Amino acid sequence: MKRFGDVIRVPADKYAEYVEKHNNIWPSIVEMMRDAHIQNFTIFHRDGYLFKYYEYTGDDYEADMAKLNANEEHQKWLEYTAVCQQPVDSAEDGEWWAPMNDIFHIL
Amino acid sequence: MKRFGDVIRVPADKYAEYVEKHNNIWPSIVEMMRDAHIQNFTIFHRDGYLFKYYEYTGDDYEADMAKLNANEEHQKWLEYTAVCQQPVDSAEDGEWWAPMNDIFHIL
Repeated sequence: MKRFGDVIRVPADKYAEYVEKHNNIWPSIVEMMRDAHIQNFTIFHRDGYLFKYYEYTGDDYEADMAKLNANEEHQKWLEYTAVCQQPVDSAEDGEWWAPMNDIFHIL
Repeated sequence: MKRFGDVIRVPADKYAEYVEKHNNIWPSIVEMMRDAHIQNFTIFHRDGYLFKYYEYTGDDYEADMAKLNANEEHQKWLEYTAVCQQPVDSAEDGEWWAPMNDIFHIL
């Protein structure tokens, strides 16, 4: 199992919309994330930042993410929620959620 | 199982020390965290911020944390690593790690 942590901003005037959309996440999105071997997917919020944690339990991360990202419904979900997000200042050009480094964990 | 996410800062000149201390965490600390029903404890870093994720699997969180915080060796560990940390601006008076809200998760 590999852990991932990513960060992005949510403008104050978009926070309620972001939460409401996730309270009503499309069931197909949850299903395809599970099919992609993602578990314990959690989004936290504080001070205008969103922190995303998840674990990958499969054996081909690149292939699973490529399949997920190629799915049209998944693309629509990302566009639907992206209007509530802004990359952090340190994000690379074109980068959306910015990866954090796992510097310590207890299995 | 309940998820927790907390945030704190690490000054740039303290980052290497923080990582080195965690690379050599005292085995007793890991053991007492497990005894406190903490699992999947992970610390991420980016842009001077530390993000801590963990899960609590017991049935009396207050009691388990009180026991942990009353342990002298655990207190020494917290003091030993606290010199590398600074609370975020929005932290309450006396608050160290500042809690984030779990706004969405997939079990």
